[in-house]
This record gives sequence, structure tokens and C-alpha cells, in this order.
Amino acid sequence: MPHSDDVPVLVLNGPNLNLLGLREPGIYGKETLAAIEELCRETARAHGLTADCRQSNHEGVLIDAVHEARTAHRAIVINPAGYSHTSVALRDALAAVELPVVEVHLSNIHKREPFRHHSYVSAVADTVICGAGSHGYALALAHAATLVRGR
Amino acid sequence: MPHSDDVPVLVLNGPNLNLLGLREPGIYGKETLAAIEELCRETARAHGLTADCRQSNHEGVLIDAVHEARTAHRAIVINPAGYSHTSVALRDALAAVELPVVEVHLSNIHKREPFRHHSYVSAVADTVICGAGSHGYALALAHAATLVRGR
Amino acid sequence: MPHSDDVPVLVLNGPNLNLLGLREPGIYGKETLAAIEELCRETARAHGLTADCRQSNHEGVLIDAVHEARTAHRAIVINPAGYSHTSVALRDALAAVELPVVEVHLSNIHKREPFRHHSYVSAVADTVICGAGSHGYALALAHAATLVRGR
Amino acid sequence: MPHSDDVPVLVLNGPNLNLLGLREPGIYGKETLAAIEELCRETARAHGLTADCRQSNHEGVLIDAVHEARTAHRAIVINPAGYSHTSVALRDALAAVELPVVEVHLSNIHKREPFRHHSYVSAVADTVICGAGSHGYALALAHAATLVRGR
Amino acid sequence: MPHSDDVPVLVLNGPNLNLLGLREPGIYGKETLAAIEELCRETARAHGLTADCRQSNHEGVLIDAVHEARTAHRAIVINPAGYSHTSVALRDALAAVELPVVEVHLSNIHKREPFRHHSYVSAVADTVICGAGSHGYALALAHAATLVRGR
Amino acid sequence: MPHSDDVPVLVLNGPNLNLLGLREPGIYGKETLAAIEELCRETARAHGLTADCRQSNHEGVLIDAVHEARTAHRAIVINPAGYSHTSVALRDALAAVELPVVEVHLSNIHKREPFRHHSYVSAVADTVICGAGSHGYALALAHAATLVRGR
Amino acid sequence: MPHSDDVPVLVLNGPNLNLLGLREPGIYGKETLAAIEELCRETARAHGLTADCRQSNHEGVLIDAVHEARTAHRAIVINPAGYSHTSVALRDALAAVELPVVEVHLSNIHKREPFRHHSYVSAVADTVICGAGSHGYALALAHAATLVRGR
Amino acid sequence: MPHSDDVPVLVLNGPNLNLLGLREPGIYGKETLAAIEELCRETARAHGLTADCRQSNHEGVLIDAVHEARTAHRAIVINPAGYSHTSVALRDALAAVELPVVEVHLSNIHKREPFRHHSYVSAVADTVICGAGSHGYALALAHAATLVRGR
Amino acid sequence: MPHSDDVPVLVLNGPNLNLLGLREPGIYGKETLAAIEELCRETARAHGLTADCRQSNHEGVLIDAVHEARTAHRAIVINPAGYSHTSVALRDALAAVELPVVEVHLSNIHKREPFRHHSYVSAVADTVICGAGSHGYALALAHAATLVRGR
Amino acid sequence: MPHSDDVPVLVLNGPNLNLLGLREPGIYGKETLAAIEELCRETARAHGLTADCRQSNHEGVLIDAVHEARTAHRAIVINPAGYSHTSVALRDALAAVELPVVEVHLSNIHKREPFRHHSYVSAVADTVICGAGSHGYALALAHAATLVRGR
Amino acid sequence: MPHSDDVPVLVLNGPNLNLLGLREPGIYGKETLAAIEELCRETARAHGLTADCRQSNHEGVLIDAVHEARTAHRAIVINPAGYSHTSVALRDALAAVELPVVEVHLSNIHKREPFRHHSYVSAVADTVICGAGSHGYALALAHAATLVRGR
Amino acid sequence: MPHSDDVPVLVLNGPNLNLLGLREPGIYGKETLAAIEELCRETARAHGLTADCRQSNHEGVLIDAVHEARTAHRAIVINPAGYSHTSVALRDALAAVELPVVEVHLSNIHKREPFRHHSYVSAVADTVICGAGSHGYALALAHAATLVRGR
Repeated sequence: MPHSDDVPVLVLNGPNLNLLGLREPGIYGKETLAAIEELCRETARAHGLTADCRQSNHEGVLIDAVHEARTAHRAIVINPAGYSHTSVALRDALAAVELPVVEVHLSNIHKREPFRHHSYVSAVADTVICGAGSHGYALALAHAATLVRGR
Repeated sequence: MPHSDDVPVLVLNGPNLNLLGLREPGIYGKETLAAIEELCRETARAHGLTADCRQSNHEGVLIDAVHEARTAHRAIVINPAGYSHTSVALRDALAAVELPVVEVHLSNIHKREPFRHHSYVSAVADTVICGAGSHGYALALAHAATLVRGR
Repeated sequence: MPHSDDVPVLVLNGPNLNLLGLREPGIYGKETLAAIEELCRETARAHGLTADCRQSNHEGVLIDAVHEARTAHRAIVINPAGYSHTSVALRDALAAVELPVVEVHLSNIHKREPFRHHSYVSAVADTVICGAGSHGYALALAHAATLVRGR
Repeated sequence: MPHSDDVPVLVLNGPNLNLLGLREPGIYGKETLAAIEELCRETARAHGLTADCRQSNHEGVLIDAVHEARTAHRAIVINPAGYSHTSVALRDALAAVELPVVEVHLSNIHKREPFRHHSYVSAVADTVICGAGSHGYALALAHAATLVRGR
Repeated sequence: MPHSDDVPVLVLNGPNLNLLGLREPGIYGKETLAAIEELCRETARAHGLTADCRQSNHEGVLIDAVHEARTAHRAIVINPAGYSHTSVALRDALAAVELPVVEVHLSNIHKREPFRHHSYVSAVADTVICGAGSHGYALALAHAATLVRGR
Repeated sequence: MPHSDDVPVLVLNGPNLNLLGLREPGIYGKETLAAIEELCRETARAHGLTADCRQSNHEGVLIDAVHEARTAHRAIVINPAGYSHTSVALRDALAAVELPVVEVHLSNIHKREPFRHHSYVSAVADTVICGAGSHGYALALAHAATLVRGR
Repeated sequence: MPHSDDVPVLVLNGPNLNLLGLREPGIYGKETLAAIEELCRETARAHGLTADCRQSNHEGVLIDAVHEARTAHRAIVINPAGYSHTSVALRDALAAVELPVVEVHLSNIHKREPFRHHSYVSAVADTVICGAGSHGYALALAHAATLVRGR
Repeated sequence: MPHSDDVPVLVLNGPNLNLLGLREPGIYGKETLAAIEELCRETARAHGLTADCRQSNHEGVLIDAVHEARTAHRAIVINPAGYSHTSVALRDALAAVELPVVEVHLSNIHKREPFRHHSYVSAVADTVICGAGSHGYALALAHAATLVRGR
Repeated sequence: MPHSDDVPVLVLNGPNLNLLGLREPGIYGKETLAAIEELCRETARAHGLTADCRQSNHEGVLIDAVHEARTAHRAIVINPAGYSHTSVALRDALAAVELPVVEVHLSNIHKREPFRHHSYVSAVADTVICGAGSHGYALALAHAATLVRGR
Repeated sequence: MPHSDDVPVLVLNGPNLNLLGLREPGIYGKETLAAIEELCRETARAHGLTADCRQSNHEGVLIDAVHEARTAHRAIVINPAGYSHTSVALRDALAAVELPVVEVHLSNIHKREPFRHHSYVSAVADTVICGAGSHGYALALAHAATLVRGR
Repeated sequence: MPHSDDVPVLVLNGPNLNLLGLREPGIYGKETLAAIEELCRETARAHGLTADCRQSNHEGVLIDAVHEARTAHRAIVINPAGYSHTSVALRDALAAVELPVVEVHLSNIHKREPFRHHSYVSAVADTVICGAGSHGYALALAHAATLVRGR
Repeated sequence: MPHSDDVPVLVLNGPNLNLLGLREPGIYGKETLAAIEELCRETARAHGLTADCRQSNHEGVLIDAVHEARTAHRAIVINPAGYSHTSVALRDALAAVELPVVEVHLSNIHKREPFRHHSYVSAVADTVICGAGSHGYALALAHAATLVRGR
């Protein structure tokens, strides 16, 4: 839970991202999720934000987390991973909470299988960043800071 | 849990419906889920039924609830929300329990994005009611009563 | 023609529904159109409405009836039957008259051939009810009453 | 948890398979899940394997189980049931753990509705067996034994 | 109206066929509708049938005629012309009356524009004959005779 | 019926256009059909033509009118409205009469729903004018005059 | 080989039709191929033709037979069975020999699986008759006689 | 450059139209581009406009010309020719300059290959005129005059 | 030809499988067809069956073999190879003989080109096994034994 | 069979090409197959090759010929004709033999019916030449010579 | 032209972006292209890069610029605007020069018309950033710096 | 510019081909454009032609060049590269000039991404040669010589 004078941002990672650094490094890079979350917290601090990082393989848990963000956070940075392509429910949750949303993908999904080219989340996100590896999270937090300030 | 001489009906609400009244009132109206569930209980009583109301954002929890309805309830009124369009597993659960099923949608899904026009659940439901707002639940329970009596 | 202190509602049945009770009872039930129209009139009265029932196999006659409803009725309950899937003209008529519209189908069209899954009318209706058999007309009139009062 | 000198194999059953023997026997046969799991354990033993059987209706629980298999098992036999057709997340989990995977379906999915003809899991499985009923699990374990030995 | 000891067959011609012999002879031949109807009556007599010939450009009139055939005729020979490709209502009428139906097209519709390759009527007809010119009506009546006798 | 020394042109308006000026002025403008027909007659006179104006909501009546034009008129200006997108029969009628045909749409159909982007009539018309409002009828008659002279 | 003063017609039956009468009588009827061929020979004689009947399960043999018909026969009656839907080569053969072609199907292919609705052969045939059972061959030969005479 | 008291309109012709009168007269007519431009200038003058005519085969040059029209002209008449079907960039340019736009095609593009039926430009044009030959430019300028006056 | 007290099973291999062991070992493995056929015969014996093995590159020869199996064999194990994806005729043959059918593919066809994902044969097979290499034939024969006993 | 010091190349012609010069000269030209084969042999000699020419209407015979080419020839020039568009089996054969392959079509298949635009063979050929008439065979042999030398 | 000890990066803006700040500010924001280019130069300097900014409405000019970048720059930041969706040639140019590529879009293209959801460029870019407004250029340059250092 | 007694042929290379030899040699080979153009000139001379070679990355420049060829050249050999798949304007230019056209692609486009399988140019070319590398240009000029002589 972020401190009272912070600007809390939810950083939400979806299914299988707990395996980062262990799985298919040719696609996802060698960094672990812990390292990425640490990068997020550092970058957030540098922009006057506090990153609250969570990961789940459960669609319902991700939706619950988005709902909680309505009152607990000021923006959401999300990598919906496999649920990007199949979850209308997650999309609806993000649309409902009316927070700034930045969608991140480690790999460039447009270079992969056709079923990965479409994300249900993209149409309810403000911004989409893909193919920048773990650096994409830093870019996302930097941009989330501008979105928070712009509201 | 309904009384022994009642006709228990499961009223099952899917993802994001816990936010009703808070979210996108232009689409979903201003009533809260609690108000809708109270309406369901009242309508059910008026038709000799007992409405057992649940909501979850988790596809698996919804499937488990449908399974339990096999022995605990005599009909199902379900608003599958975002899972309508993506869940073969929920459809299979509804087909398996062989109870009367009435599908409800608050908004008229045929006026919305094309991906909302198809519901996997509709082909295993007996009846589909959409676009009647919260009144649709009352209509659904009124019809569930006729389906229960018809078996 | 409804009495002056009534709230007249047009109940419009499309092609082949004059054969109800005679044709394919496995799909459409055993009730005749006359019985359904009587049910409509009774239900309407119970909700303070007057049901004005018509049926035609002619697309143009249905469109003319919708046009007349602009000044003669306060809502429309319509089962467009086979024209649901093919008539842009009927859809345009319903959109033009700017009355509450409840679309009814006796059978659950989502369980039938794929070409019956799409209705041009649905996107201009307020509410769609399908698969409730003749009871669906009663539900439709009950809902039309709330729509009339809501305007 | 399998013994230390065993070759543990995860047998994972997806949504609604807990209802086996109770539901739609014309499609799925009359055997219960317990009977199938016993068959799996016997067949596994006959091939020098230990079958570790689990079932869940929750996509996230299935993904978690696949992740645990990375270190706890040497192969996976999976019947993804309804999630076969909709879960990119489960597919990604199976791809990530880099174990031999045998996909099983009780019924011949190619004889059923078109949306069941495609399985996201198939493209990351080594082998697919469908339509052999419960015997398909025995065939799958027999083949998993050859895959384990071949690595 | 056919005589009491005849076997009356409805020969129904759809839109624009009243122009036969006047229009596009390269596609439809040079015979007039009157000549074709005379051929139908002669052929019918030769097979112990009485051909009752009608033509209309109105979809609703064609549907009404099919409905009347339920009690007045023993089989239907129909050339639905342009309504073949667009009329679910006409298809439903033919399905509802449960008489033998032979569909005829003067030209081979499979040699023409793609939108003419599909006929809604074909799936409810017993038999389809196309591309035999006016002789196709004679073949259709000859076959209708066998269908009438076979019931 | 036009005078013997006139060049009669049929101006044919399809379904719902009798509601012009009453319905959805944002799309169709504020002019009534009577005003448009008067504009047609004036423009026709200025180009040496006589405009014979008709409107019907019935597909069959429109087809009959086209057939009569074969001998009674020298060109057709038609706004097929909702039948543009669904009527092969109307298309066939226009093709059969072999007169110059100018298709008019008040609104720019390419800015509206995708199902309005295709008109069966366009491929048998000489000229298509859409999005010019009521002025489009004047342009159409001006062009019809050149087509009549060119034959 | 037909006699010198005959009008020889090739009656060509494609794959699996040798099993007629043995296989799926609900679809194909109870008559054997031998009985159908005898019917063809009788009907041919009645119309002044000689029917030369062949059957093969081999696409290449069917093509060879069509080629031979160029000089040996005056028309072709063909039931291409399963090759209807897949053989461009057979279509090209029929187009190349420039004889009258009547395509026959025992069952109404438009009532069966979607992949049977399209026949490559239809677009190069003069006439298509389907769903008339074995009587369809008699109709086909009767029509072939008119085609031969018409050239 | 038009005079200071004129109402300047840009008439922009796209690729290959410089060959008019030289190429495929069956499709495009016999008039040269110079003749059409002269017709445009005359018609413009008759309506109180000045036509500024340009042609280019270069997509970029056409876009530049549209940009310049923002300040130099009051309306655009454009025949985008081959770029109609492929140029999002030209569409964006026309949308950006916020001038009245009338799209013209010499031939009726709906009678030609399917890839010519869709024009990216149409959805950002006010009006579309096709199939009126060179007269279409005169109609377009007449209509542009009404659009200019209407703003 | 199998002995009189055997349970004969036809093992049928389609086009190009005679090249096994010679061609693309990365996809099909290193075993020759002779080795696979020997494996089939051994496995068959172990299950009380006699495997009768044939291979052909000719679609017609494969169909003929299926026909002969009607009276000569009690089950069919088939690898249709390239004909899987294109042969309606082979599918019809398998459907007609009404024997248990097990379809085998050496490679996992769902990992290969999209046109290999659909097999016409699968919908008429009882069981499909793919991606198990030559071991798949042993699994198929083991399962064929249960199918033969089950009838 | 070519001489021992030759570089033998298989020239394989598919279905209906035996009719060349007899059939549809507007599409295929006036030369006979014999003339084309003579041209092939001459061109081959000029490039130090020996052309071994075969033609068959049987898919299986073509596949067998490709198989034999594995050891008997150094390259394949093939016109698969109608099998281009439907034969996965022929494609697999060409892929399996791992020889240089040049695909030839007499006509430009991209100017013909849409189903001829795709060739299964093209993706396994090295080179495709279409629309050069019989000269295309000469070009193909000239190029085959460079491919043979390049290996 | 960048200084000799700089790391030059090409910032390339496509069609219509010269109108930024003037056009559709609801979609593209209020900043001018000059302001964005200044932002790019500043951000570049902060990361040790030199931004070389160009814009053109001409596809060919953009391709030429990409070619020149092969030797003159170390990375490319590109907003292809309308050419994103239509230019294979630009895609090929970017693939050919083998430099790091970051694709930027001001708006979130996934919220706009369907034809804007696909970019030919994305599959050859390393990274895609959309919907971040002008800040997206700053993010892109920050990321380009990491890509340049990573090579 | 070719000499007065030559037969001048335009050899036109499209976008990115100026990078040949520098870019992706695995796909396009190692030869430079200069070497290919020299090969073209030599081959042309050997066949009594003069090759006039040009290359541009600009679609408009290519179209202009095609227009000039109308009077300056007798045939066109064109490699449209990336514009093959997107340029209706280039296609129209080639159709308009009514010269023999031979389309060349260095690589076999049917082995590459699906969007490269269709070329707008192919349907207006006489001949298409792809996958023959630089030798394809020599074949194209050899064939252009026959086309020139054939007119």
C-alpha cells in the first residue's frame, strides 16, 4: 500500500510473466519479474510516483486488482500477456475504472503469431508500448506520470 | 441457502457487474448490484421462487457455482457479462447441468461493438433477454418460473 | 383502434406467423396466433395498455403499419420473423418512428441456423427477448409498459 | 507428490471434467473422473511413471499447475476441455515449461461444433489424441513414457 | 381452381418472370411466361396432375400463395427468381406447408454472379433443377408427380 | 401520365422516404418528399423532361413500377433506400427494362453502417450520386437528360 | 460401344457410387448402381439415345473417360460425387470436350454439409439436377436429348 | 491563381487521367483531360466559381495540392482514380483540410472489379458521383457551388 | 489376406509415405515405411488382430481399398497424408463402409501450415492421433482393438 | 530413359494437357502437346540437358513420376494444370524429392478465375513462369539448366 | 547534418504530419510539427544522440530518406502516418537498412477505424509506441538510445 | 534513349531495388542492380532489342515512366517490388499503355508472407516470372522479344 503523500500507480502483470527470465529468453529477454518490478519502483520514484506491483495467472484476480485500483491508484500500467487476446472481461474492467491505462508488451507482438496481433485491451488503453523489452515498463511509467499530471 | 419448501433459483452475475451503478451509467444504468439483487429476490418471491444471488469476476468461480446448482437449484438466471463472448467453459457448464437457463444482459448487446454480438451462452440458454435494464432480471425470473413449472 | 384514454401499443407479427399452431410445433409451440394475440391484449390491459394486433406476410404492409404507429401508438412490440434477417427497410422504418421497440422471437434464434443469428432489427430495438415462447409476448408488453412510462 | 525414484507425470483435467459420468454420456461416456484418474495411475505404473492427477475449473489454477510441473514433473498429459479453444494463457504456460505435452480429448472434437475444431494448445503439444474416450488417457500415458525416455 | 378428382400442383413464378421473352433472351430464352405456363399445364396433364400457375413480383403475395397451397395443392413447383437469394420469409413459408417442393431456375445460376449461387429455398426444397430452360418446368412437373405418388 | 410530346422520366422513391422531413433530419435533411418531388418536376421541365414521381414502401410495387416504365418512360431516377442493400429482385427489374438508370441517395452511404456500403442496384445503374441531399435529384435529372439524348 | 446409328451418351458416375444401395440409404436411397444404369439405358432408348454407363473411384479414369467422349459420345450425364467439390481437373476436362453436360446428384446437396454446396463442375455444366434420387438420371437423359437435338 | 473576388475551387485529377481520350475509351470515354478541364472552367464560371485544375500521377503531389487548398480554395472536386482504393494518406489529407469535397469517377466503379468498389476517399467526401462520364465533373462543380454557399 | 480366425484390420497409408525415412526426417522421423508396417503387424498380433498393410499414391486406389475393407476387414487404421486435406471422396468412402476408423498422422499437423490443420477424414473417423511419430500406429492399433471388441 | 552422360530433366504435364491444340485455343494456344514436348527436347539439348517428357491425367501417376525422378532426374519442369490448385499430395511429393523444380503455366493464371490464382505447388517450386505460352517451357528448361549447375 | 562525434538518429514523419496543430486537434493534439521536432532534438541531446528531423508527404521521398539513413544514421524513429497501413515499399526499405527502428503514432490507432489497426511497418520495427501524443517521440528517442548502445 | 533502328524495351525496377546486393542477400541474391541492368542490356542485344533501364522508389515516377513508354518503347519488363501488392495506379498505367508487359520478381513471392502472394500487376501483365533470381530478367527479355515480334 503506497504512502499517503505518494501518487500510487498499479503495475499489473498477467499470466506466465512470473516465469520471466526462466522461459523462452529469445522472446522475452533474460530479466526476472523481480528485476522488472524493481525497475518499475525506481522509475516510478524518479517521476514522483509509487509503483504497486502485482502479478497473477488468474483472470479474475487481475480484474479484482483493477477494480481495487479505482480508489487505491491513480493510473494503471498493465501487461495483460495471454489475456490481451482473449479477455473481454479484463477490457471491461479497465474501461470501468476510468483511470489512465498504459499497456505494455515485452516483445513486439506484431512480429509474432497472427492471433497475438489483436489486443482487446488496446482499445481501452490510452497508450500502447510493445517491443521495448523491460525498458518498456520504464517508458510506461514515465508516460503514466504525464497522464496523471494531465488530469 | 434456500428453505426446504422453496423453489431455489440461482441468479448469477459475471465480471464487473459488482461495479454497477458506479460505472458507465450511460450504458448500464444507475442501479447498484445490491438493488438488482433485491429486485430479484422480490420478484422471485412473487412467483413462488427463492432467488439465490451471487457475483464473481472469476470464470472458474462462476463455473463452480453452475455445477453446484445441479443439485441445489431448479433454474439459473445468468448475466455472463464479458465471459458471454469468450467462455466455452462456462457454456459447457451450463449445458452440463441440464437446468432451465435464462440469459440476461442489461444493455442491448446488438447495439454495441461487433465482438459483443455473439454470446457462447445463448445457444445453451432456453431464453435470452437483453436491453431491458434491471427490469430484465424481473422478466427473467418471471419466465424462469414458467420453465420450472413446465418440467 | 384504441380508446382515447388508453395507451395504445402496436403488436406486429411478421411473415408465416399466421400459421402458428399449424406449423413445426417442435420449434414454434402449439398455440395459434389468435391465442397469442388474446394473451397480448390481456397482458396489455393488466399493465394499463391497449394492444393493437396485426399480422402480415408483406414487408411493405409491415412498414406501413410501423409508419402509422408514429401517431397512433406509443410503443411497438414486433416479431419480424423471417424479415428480421433480411430487411433493412423494416429496420429503417422502426428507427424513423422513434418509438420504444421490443423485439420478440418465439424460438431462441441463437440455437438455429447461422443466418438466423443476426437480426437487422435488434440494433434499432430497445429490448430483445427470444426463446420464451408465447410468454415472450407477455414479457415484452410488461417491458413496453415501463418504456412508455419512462418517456 | 510422487516418490523420489518415480518418473512423475502431471495429468491435468480442465473445466467441467469433474462432472464426467454425470453429464451428456452420449458425448463423454459413462465413466467418472475418479475412474479415469485410477486408469491413469494404473497405466502410468505399467510404464514406469507415476501419474499425479488434478482437475480444476479455473484457468489460473491450471496455469499454476503447469508452472509447478516445471520442477515437479517430467511430462504433462492434459485435457484442456473448454479452455482448449479460448486460452492463449494456458498455451503460453505449456510452451514455457518445455516439457513433453500430450493433449487428450475424450470426444472427437472434429465431429462437434466448428468452434471446437481449433485448439490453442495443439500447436504447443507434442501429440494430440482425440475421440478415444477414456482409453485416450491410457494411450497418452503410454506415449508420454516414450517421450520422457526420448529426452 | 383444380377439379375435384385432379391432383392440383401449384406452379409459382417469382419477380420479373412476367417479362420472360421480352428481357435478356441470351440468359432467359425467348419463350414468354404464357408459353411456359401452357407447357406446365400440358406436362401436368400427361402425368395426371393439374398445374395451377401464378406469378407475382411481390414477396408477400408469393408467401400467401404458398400458404394457400397447404390445403389447395399437393405439391409446389417454384421459380423464386430474385427472391431465391434474399428471402428467408419465403423459405420459411415453404418449410411450413410441408408439401413436396421442386425448385426451378431457367438459367444455370452457378454460371452467373456469385450472389446468385446461393438460394435460401434450396435447403427446404426436395429437388433443384437449374439451367434446363423452359424444359426445366416439364422436368419439375414430371418429378413432382413421383413425389406426390411417393407420399 | 405524361403528355404525348414530353420525354417522361420515372422518379421512384423507395421505403420510408415518405417520412422525409419528419425523420432523422441530421441524416436526411429537413425537406419533405413533396418538396423533393416538386424540385424534380421543375428540374425536369428545365431539361425538357417530365418527371413522373412515385413512392412505395413495397418492394413488389417498386418492381411493378419499373416494369411499367419499359413502355411509359424513357429513363429512371431511383432512390431505392433500404432495398438498395437487399433486393436482387429490384436489381433484376432495372436490368430487364433496359432504360437509363440514375441511382440517388440523399446521404453519403459510405459514411454510414458497413451494410449500407453495398447497393445491388449500383451495378445495373448507369450513374450513382450520393450525399448531395435533395440537390442530388436535380443532378440526377440533369444527367438523365443527357442519357436520354445520348440514346 | 454404341451402334453406328445411335446417339451415344456417356453416363459417368464418380467415387463411391458403386456402393449405392449398400450405403447410407437414408441419404442415397435403396437402389443399386446396376438398377440406376438399367434405368438410364431404358430412358435413353425412349429418347432415341444410347446410354454408355461407367463408374470409377479414380479421378484420372473419370477424366480419361471424358476425353474419350469427345469423339465417342454426343453428350455427358455425370454424377461427380465427391469430386464435385474438389476437382478442378475434372472441371477442365468437361470444359475442354465441349459437349452438352448434365450434372446429377442423387441427394439435394444444399441440405448437406456446407462443403457440399459448391460444385466445381456446375459452372461448366449446362444443367444441374439434384435431389431427385435415381429419377434424376431419367430427367437428365430426357434433357440431354433436347440438348443434343438443339445443337 | 484565381482572382481576388473569385470563389476558387480545386479540381484535382489523379493517376493516369492525363491519358484520357487516349486509353480504353470503352471505359473512360473519348474526351481528353484538356477538354474536361475546359468543361470544368466553364461550368465553374456559370456557378460563380473559378476552377483551378491540376493533375498528377504522384500521390505525394496530390496530397501537397490538397494541403495548399486549405488556404487557397473553398472546395475540392477530386477524381482520385487508382489512389481511391489504396491511399489512406490522401484520405487523411482531405479530412484534414476541412473543405467541402466532391468525389468524381468517370466510370461506374460498381460495375468494375471488386477492388474498385471501395474508395477510402468516399467516407471523407461530402458527395460522390460516379458513372456520369465527363458530365460528372459539371455536376460536381454545380454541387460544390451549393456546398460553398451552404457554409 | 488374413486367416479365417483372425481379426483383420486394414492399415492404409496414403501418398508419399512410401518415401518415409528418405524424406524430410526433421518432420517425419527416420523410420522407413517397411519398419512401420512391421511395427503394425507386431502390435496387431499382441492385441489379437492381423494388420493388412497397404500404401498408394493414388486416391482412387485408396478408395478401392476402403471399399474392399467392408467385407474383408473389421477396422481401418489410416494415414491419409496429403489427401486428408483435399479428398471428399476418401471421406465418403470411409463413411460408407461403416467400420471403426482410426486416423493417424506422424507429425502434429497443428504445428504446420494452416492448410494442414483441417482433415476431411477426421469428421468421419472415430479417433484421431497425431504427432506421436511411428508410435502413433501402435497406439492406433491398440485402440482399434478396443473398437472392434466394443461392437 | 536418358543416356548415362546426359543431365536428365523430367518434364511433367498434368491433366487435360494431352488435349492441347484441340481445346480452347483462345486460352491455351494452338500447339499440340507433341509439339511442346519436341520443343522441350530441343531446348534441353541446347542447354546440355535431356528432357524426359510425360503426361498423365492421374494425380497418383504424377506423384509416382515425381518419386522416380528422385534417382532418375536432376530437375523437374512441371505444369500441374488443374492439380495446381487442389493437390497437397503432389506438393508434398515435389517437396520430398528435393530437386530443383520449375513450375510452368501456359496461360497467365492471374487473369483467370480466382480459384486458379493459388497454386499449392508454387510454394515448393524454385521458380514459377506463367503466361508465356509454349515458350514458357523453353524458358523453364533454360532456367532448370542454371539450377542444375548451381547445385 | 549531425556533428562528427554525434550519434545521428533519423526522425522521419510521414504524410499530413506537417499539418499538426492545425488539423483535428481532438485526435492529434495541439502541438505543431516544429514543436515536436524541437522536442525530439532536445530529448536526443539528453541521451547523447542527434536528431535529424524530416517530413514528407511523398512515399518515395520517405523511402529515399530511409535508404540514406543506412550510412548516415544509427537508428530511425518513424511515424509513417497514413503509409503505415498501405506501404509495403516503406516496410521493405526499413527492413533493408537493418537499423534499429522505433515506430511512433501520436494517437492510439487501436481506438480508431479498423483499417488503422494494422501497420505494415510494425512487423519490421523493433518497438512500437502509440497513443502517447508528442511525448511518444521523447519515449522513442529514449528507447532508440538503448537500442543504439545495445548493438 | 535507344537508337532509331532499335526495338527499345523499358526495363523498370521499383522501390528498394537500388539496394540490391546490399540488402538481405538470402532473399534477393548478391548481384547489384548495375550488374542486373548490364545483364539486361546484353540479353536485349542478343535478341535484337535495346534495354532502357530505370529504377525509382517513387510510385509516381514509375507511372510517368510507363506513360512515356507508350511512344518510346515496344515492351515493358517490370519488377514492381513492393508496389506489386498495393498499387492500383501502377496497374492502371500498365493497362493503359497497351504494350506487352512481362512482370519479374527476383524471389519466389509465393514462398514469402501472404501479403506478397497477390500482385495487382499480374492481371494486366502478359507473363509473370518469379523466383529465377537475376536470370529472370534475361528470361523476361527473351520472352519480350517474342511478344514484340508477335504483334
